[in-house]
Amino acid sequence: MPAQYVMGLDYGTNTVRALLVNVANGKEVATSVWGYRHGTDGVMLSRDPNLARQHPEDYVAGAEATLRQALAVARRTVRGFQPAQVVGIGVDTTGSTPIPVDANGRPLAFSKRFARHPAAMAWLWKDHTGVAEAAEITALAGKIRPHYLAKCGGTYSSEWFFSKILHCLRTSPEVFDAAHLWVECADWVPAMLTGTEAPDSLTVGVCAAGHKAMYNDAWGGYPDAEFLGQLDPKLGALRGRLRPQARTIDRPVGTLSDAWARRTGLPAGIPVAVGAFDAHLGAVGSGIAPGTLVKIIGTSTCDMMVAPVDQPLADIPGLCGIVNGSILPGYYGLEAGQSAVGDIFNWFVNYLQPGGRKAGSHEALTAAAARLQPGESGLLALDWNNGNRTILVDQRLTGLLLGQTLYTTPAEIYRALIEATAFGALTIINRLEEYGVAVRQIVNCGGIAEKNPVVMQIYADVTGRPMSVSRSAQTCALGAAIAGAVAAQVYPNCAKAQAAMTGLKPRVFRPNPKAHAVYAELYGLYRKLHDAFGTADWSGNLHDVMKRLLDLRHRVRG
Amino acid sequence: MPAQYVMGLDYGTNTVRALLVNVANGKEVATSVWGYRHGTDGVMLSRDPNLARQHPEDYVAGAEATLRQALAVARRTVRGFQPAQVVGIGVDTTGSTPIPVDANGRPLAFSKRFARHPAAMAWLWKDHTGVAEAAEITALAGKIRPHYLAKCGGTYSSEWFFSKILHCLRTSPEVFDAAHLWVECADWVPAMLTGTEAPDSLTVGVCAAGHKAMYNDAWGGYPDAEFLGQLDPKLGALRGRLRPQARTIDRPVGTLSDAWARRTGLPAGIPVAVGAFDAHLGAVGSGIAPGTLVKIIGTSTCDMMVAPVDQPLADIPGLCGIVNGSILPGYYGLEAGQSAVGDIFNWFVNYLQPGGRKAGSHEALTAAAARLQPGESGLLALDWNNGNRTILVDQRLTGLLLGQTLYTTPAEIYRALIEATAFGALTIINRLEEYGVAVRQIVNCGGIAEKNPVVMQIYADVTGRPMSVSRSAQTCALGAAIAGAVAAQVYPNCAKAQAAMTGLKPRVFRPNPKAHAVYAELYGLYRKLHDAFGTADWSGNLHDVMKRLLDLRHRVRG
Repeated sequence: MPAQYVMGLDYGTNTVRALLVNVANGKEVATSVWGYRHGTDGVMLSRDPNLARQHPEDYVAGAEATLRQALAVARRTVRGFQPAQVVGIGVDTTGSTPIPVDANGRPLAFSKRFARHPAAMAWLWKDHTGVAEAAEITALAGKIRPHYLAKCGGTYSSEWFFSKILHCLRTSPEVFDAAHLWVECADWVPAMLTGTEAPDSLTVGVCAAGHKAMYNDAWGGYPDAEFLGQLDPKLGALRGRLRPQARTIDRPVGTLSDAWARRTGLPAGIPVAVGAFDAHLGAVGSGIAPGTLVKIIGTSTCDMMVAPVDQPLADIPGLCGIVNGSILPGYYGLEAGQSAVGDIFNWFVNYLQPGGRKAGSHEALTAAAARLQPGESGLLALDWNNGNRTILVDQRLTGLLLGQTLYTTPAEIYRALIEATAFGALTIINRLEEYGVAVRQIVNCGGIAEKNPVVMQIYADVTGRPMSVSRSAQTCALGAAIAGAVAAQVYPNCAKAQAAMTGLKPRVFRPNPKAHAVYAELYGLYRKLHDAFGTADWSGNLHDVMKRLLDLRHRVRG
Repeated sequence: MPAQYVMGLDYGTNTVRALLVNVANGKEVATSVWGYRHGTDGVMLSRDPNLARQHPEDYVAGAEATLRQALAVARRTVRGFQPAQVVGIGVDTTGSTPIPVDANGRPLAFSKRFARHPAAMAWLWKDHTGVAEAAEITALAGKIRPHYLAKCGGTYSSEWFFSKILHCLRTSPEVFDAAHLWVECADWVPAMLTGTEAPDSLTVGVCAAGHKAMYNDAWGGYPDAEFLGQLDPKLGALRGRLRPQARTIDRPVGTLSDAWARRTGLPAGIPVAVGAFDAHLGAVGSGIAPGTLVKIIGTSTCDMMVAPVDQPLADIPGLCGIVNGSILPGYYGLEAGQSAVGDIFNWFVNYLQPGGRKAGSHEALTAAAARLQPGESGLLALDWNNGNRTILVDQRLTGLLLGQTLYTTPAEIYRALIEATAFGALTIINRLEEYGVAVRQIVNCGGIAEKNPVVMQIYADVTGRPMSVSRSAQTCALGAAIAGAVAAQVYPNCAKAQAAMTGLKPRVFRPNPKAHAVYAELYGLYRKLHDAFGTADWSGNLHDVMKRLLDLRHRVRG
């Protein structure tokens, strides 16, 4: 029997990637990447630094280009390969990235009227224009629907679905009024490929709905119309057009349409799985299972776990979201994260440019940092240059570096920054375990996990736990492909597909007990600073310092 | 009548300078600098980073070289100049820099036996080998002589006279036993020039004795023999050989010896004034008077004031020293200071080397920092990279930087560091005023005050007070020359001499009210961090963080 393949389609912030995977063993046989054409590296910006949009045309053109190209590569490199061997497709995207669509499910941006209107574009995950609306939603939920907040860490974010939609309603009512519905990118792409975009045939994934739109079966899906109506009557009216039921990634939304089969060369009729976010399918591609924490480490981190739905699970304060089925069907998906990890190292290298061009590269600083002992620098840092996502859920926190003398070196600071992110990681692990979610294994993936053994060793030493690294360098696309394989019923469930298609690298980073002992002491001090500057219930009254500096900066900059 | 001149002889850490000054108007007509020959730039180091010594031979050779050379310059450049027009000499030096001498007042280092013995050298002001002994002295004084401590800010420093002598006794008893007496460099140089080195003809200045050796007329001079004897019986025995009376700078210790007249070309028999420390005579050369704060800003700062002795003056907590007559006769000399100012900027430029060679120079960073508004960066720093001298008197404090984002630039940090030193300066001013010492004028001198108008403007804006700059670029040597003029009775007192010989630059830096308002807010936050990390009485229990990091570093480095 000829080999079977599945395609994973991975929509990132700047590029889209297609990955062709052998369903039997997870072998990645062909890949293709395409850069979005609109804006700056695919992101449409404006004078408002909070604004970040994408043009949905790039989603269409990107699918066509990468799927065709991946097939072409496979034809060249895999002996006897035929596109007919591809049996399914899965899709992951960024999110929350909602797109306003018309009554046919067509993005408003495809119409002449709105082709250049920023509010008619996809509102990219990192768009923060809805800060005021997020605060409004949080305040109202706190007053009349506290259970909504309990499932998303106590704060509704400006990055999320309803903040963006409400901001559009308030600032671009012509777009809001023209939109029949708002569809997450993760839902729209599978719908596009299967011709199921029409609002009444649309399938939405529980990943996006649950984590970003307060969707929960416990209260009948999306937030109720009364709640949304109190924010704005028009938002209340939108509630009736939202889909009643969200789905998990093991199900198909439909099959590849004839049109898309022609465009790509893929066989028509193969199943396309329910879409999900990159981090969630990255966790799947890293072999997530109960007890396994998957850390996706890039510019920021996503820290993902699953917990069986048939066992009680408390709300976990400070955790962005706990959603039934958002990662694996039958399990709660838990999403935590650090607002900046690689971005902090990038700031130090690119903005401070310490020690000149040569001595100040990531490679040189990493090598010099590796020669230092834990505790040797006398430095301690907080990893808050971009705020704190878990466990403080506070974007208005900033960085801190303490302990510098007249002889402190760039390598010492670089190591202190790495350590700070490790302390942040440990704080998340501790919070999970405090609430009964045991962390028995940690699998890391993403660029830093792949490329920087010094960071991985420090993470092992700080946490006192072995650090494994995912075998695949494309865990998000691989996870999407696994969803495609399960939706195509090659495997009866995700666990079986993961067992066959995922794996770990042979090198495991094991904690050095001596280093861990020093870090245990340093972590106590980190936690002291963390609580002093990050929590209001701490006696020293320092929690307002960073915020007052931000207020002052805002006033001065005008 | 031909013009009269006085010579100021200024012993720094790396060089000695002679300055020839017209007594009528303070005009500086000739100068000469000589670099010490021993050690690294005049400082003898060892593997112990706390050790810093000087060879007394450099004091002798340096006096001869610079005095001859200054006269030679004057002969070339001043029409009709004759050395006979020089009517007096004054001397300032670093301190506490005690020298062990034999029964003839000759430094032990001049003998064959001790010519290379580190403990027989001059123990330079920044030698910190006596840390343990300083703690011992502080502890004993706290127990049985609390009034000793009250006059030196509550802590006896490792940099000071008895810490160094006791450390020598403990670690190099052969040197201690061979020494008849220990003489401050500031006393030894005038004695050398006048042939009064012999212990029973020696004159000691009240500046060194009062600020560094707990000398006070209120308790009969130096600390009593019982106190010193409890530290070590041999130290108690030394007490009997210390001079009974310390003198002010308006008096001569004697007249220039024939031998030194021959060596230098100066007229024999001219008076040599009582010596004092560089900062104190720098204050004199900057025109210090009641109500005038003189800030000598270099790698660190000295902040000097005087207060009339006929008015009550409380002990001021955290002030290094309050000594009757240490700056001007008839006034208490008050000495405060910041452990690092220029050194913090130098650390940032030389150790971090931000932004590459060009963008990271002091000049480029200053220019970029000048373009920022107060509060614009959102940053706040503590100026403790080298500990805190006033008002916390704690060397075991370290730096802190707070508020960095993913976009913070080197210029923003540079400005935050300048602002931090300004906040430190304001803390000293506030402490003086809280205890009844009104600051009505501020005169700055030293390299940074001379060269960096951006720093001066920030200081004006932060403190809300005009910043003047001393006219002379050599205020220490000028102050020494003024002492020489008064000792030679050209003027009846220091005030008259200062009125004639000192002045201010025309440019005064005046506070911008808008900037000051922002800084008033920032200072509130600075003070919060200052108290949180620097004081034990603060509720938040963060005061141990920096110290525990230093302990850990010490343990790890072994």
